[in-house]
Amino acid sequence: MAVINENYLKLPGSYLFAEIAKRVATFKDDNPKANIIRLGIGDVTKPLPEAVIKGLHAAVDEMADARTFRGYGPEQGYAFLIEKIIKTDYETLGVTLAVDEVFVSDGSKSDVGNIQEIFGVNNKVAITDPVYPVYLDTNVMAGRSGQLSSGKFAGVTYLTCNAGNNFIPALPEEKVDIIYLCYPNNPTGTTLSKAELKKWVDYAKANGSIILYDAAYEAYIQEPGVPHSIYEIEGAKDVAIEFRTFSKNAGFTGTRCAFTVVPKSVMAFTADGSQYPLNSLWNRRQTTKFNGVPYIIQKGAEAVYTPEGQQQIKELISYYMANAKTIRDGLKSIGLDVFGGVNAPYIWLKTPQGYDSWSFFDKLLTDAHIVGTPGAGFGPAGEGYFRLTAFGSQESTKEAIERIKVKLSL
Amino acid sequence: MAVINENYLKLPGSYLFAEIAKRVATFKDDNPKANIIRLGIGDVTKPLPEAVIKGLHAAVDEMADARTFRGYGPEQGYAFLIEKIIKTDYETLGVTLAVDEVFVSDGSKSDVGNIQEIFGVNNKVAITDPVYPVYLDTNVMAGRSGQLSSGKFAGVTYLTCNAGNNFIPALPEEKVDIIYLCYPNNPTGTTLSKAELKKWVDYAKANGSIILYDAAYEAYIQEPGVPHSIYEIEGAKDVAIEFRTFSKNAGFTGTRCAFTVVPKSVMAFTADGSQYPLNSLWNRRQTTKFNGVPYIIQKGAEAVYTPEGQQQIKELISYYMANAKTIRDGLKSIGLDVFGGVNAPYIWLKTPQGYDSWSFFDKLLTDAHIVGTPGAGFGPAGEGYFRLTAFGSQESTKEAIERIKVKLSL
Repeated sequence: MAVINENYLKLPGSYLFAEIAKRVATFKDDNPKANIIRLGIGDVTKPLPEAVIKGLHAAVDEMADARTFRGYGPEQGYAFLIEKIIKTDYETLGVTLAVDEVFVSDGSKSDVGNIQEIFGVNNKVAITDPVYPVYLDTNVMAGRSGQLSSGKFAGVTYLTCNAGNNFIPALPEEKVDIIYLCYPNNPTGTTLSKAELKKWVDYAKANGSIILYDAAYEAYIQEPGVPHSIYEIEGAKDVAIEFRTFSKNAGFTGTRCAFTVVPKSVMAFTADGSQYPLNSLWNRRQTTKFNGVPYIIQKGAEAVYTPEGQQQIKELISYYMANAKTIRDGLKSIGLDVFGGVNAPYIWLKTPQGYDSWSFFDKLLTDAHIVGTPGAGFGPAGEGYFRLTAFGSQESTKEAIERIKVKLSL
Repeated sequence: MAVINENYLKLPGSYLFAEIAKRVATFKDDNPKANIIRLGIGDVTKPLPEAVIKGLHAAVDEMADARTFRGYGPEQGYAFLIEKIIKTDYETLGVTLAVDEVFVSDGSKSDVGNIQEIFGVNNKVAITDPVYPVYLDTNVMAGRSGQLSSGKFAGVTYLTCNAGNNFIPALPEEKVDIIYLCYPNNPTGTTLSKAELKKWVDYAKANGSIILYDAAYEAYIQEPGVPHSIYEIEGAKDVAIEFRTFSKNAGFTGTRCAFTVVPKSVMAFTADGSQYPLNSLWNRRQTTKFNGVPYIIQKGAEAVYTPEGQQQIKELISYYMANAKTIRDGLKSIGLDVFGGVNAPYIWLKTPQGYDSWSFFDKLLTDAHIVGTPGAGFGPAGEGYFRLTAFGSQESTKEAIERIKVKLSL
């Protein structure tokens, strides 16, 4: 008798964005003429950069000719792409990496979801609260939690981030083994200074823990001194795995390419206390269960690193960050407490008095026809907060803020 | 202290194709002028069909314009592709499926590797022997086996397939919960008749087992009466998940698109004996850990279903199947025992007396400069067999067979 993985049944049925879609659909049914502006999901809206389009077309042509056709590539990604990633994204930060320390993938969601497989089931996992749900859900599915109760899974350490601690998580009181950090942060849009990040690296070194560092939004950092990579912190190459993506810097959300850095010096432990390199485990995982990213897509990603590509992604980011400023300034002007949006495309706001996250969602949808994301959807400490994203068009973002000013002035 | 998943350490270090690559590299170092012909790995060599190239270019252009740009798509795949899959690949066989029973993915390797996650760790797994290594390795990694001993993992049921049983596996003597079947078979190139396949469906129904059916090579079936889909067998929609890919019918090994069918009627069990639909579990797995296949690639796959695309993939398959005939006929003419190659691009041969799989590999490489795959690499019952593939060019395949005739005549 085939038995299911019952850990899946611990997860609540309705996923955040499914619930949002349901409420929006109901509203549209009742108000078919409403011009709804979506500042909810973290999806880009500008087309792919010209350089990328050129790279993609050229690669498609290569696939049409037997002499240049590519079949199976290396599961870890082509060296032509990895070498450019290392040179452009890491050497400029003073970080050296070998080609076999970078693994190209179809997305950070896949990698942050799959990475937990290389760890034993009995590790204690820590996540920030609020958090990108994939870190938590994939560990629940793997059996690294008890049941859900009052919004928290038993056995998981929640690191509260709120206005009270300026969204800087405190080191955990109990010992934890695997720590998920995401900076610039999704959903709060906040960052950690090098000094704050160093505390985590030092904690991991002292406790034999591993940091899983999601840097999906590093390209949005505007201020000097904010770390773009955890490897800017001394000692991080012994304790941290870093996730990066082309989704948010080059508009690849529907094009699918990302990469994960697993330095060979990052060690976890066997039950008998010996050190074991995570690089070999991840390599084994990827070569066994993955067959690489399409050649065409890797050529598109490579084009991000041409001089034109670099210039074009800078323009994309400036465009979205101008939206972030529009949102921040607009919300502040009507007296709302606003966080993030300076080094990240996310604006995290405190809901006005009398509103929890979901009632604010409903009010914004009903009164201003704007879709955002309730903070409570990202964890219990997100209750009383709300996320808006800078990924809309400049026109619709401006229009949205004007509507908010009119409808929600306090 | 972060502890690794020690199940990974049960796997032998060197993967089959890595060992082959090592031996070939050594031979090339010693014989730099040798013209090596590779009939080893199952990778295609012909370029993508014209219709697919056209579809890819058009999709790249859509990504260059904000009005047609696509960001995140449905994790399960776009309906435009799924609807054509159902209509062309299933309705023609008399099989009806709903759109939410088909999940588009980046490859069958990913899906056959990830599918085991939705099952509990204590299921008893059966694989044929020889076998495509991913089925076995991914279950070992998940903890569904004991240690490796004399070429077999403790706790796994090996279903022997050899010339003695005409490569038709017998039903297992002990009860098994999850059964991996691949037909047309990789590596043996053999098929099961509908009557033989029905025995497995009946076994699964009687025992509450699930069949994971890999139909990656169905497009190579030439003979009438050989089932293209397990759903041609009565009752299979209650017990079987089917994996299909564009890799082998349309040359997508480096382009990456596949799909998996999970009918809503396929049920496994909770520990208390209640039925639970695998469709919802797989949907949860994919929506949590995967972000879909690139829009561009799905548009390329869609083009496979245009009239031109269907004609062009027929020509591709005919080309490779002519190679299969060349190999079969050539090997038979020198007295070798040959299997497969009639409804599959793989030819499975009995190594001549005095040679085991690896010594035959070395002889073929040294004497004829031809790379094949040792049968022993696919499991203990593959010892004494050898795999050649039909995916080379017609010229090199003919040349390879001429060399074999000269160098290996018995």
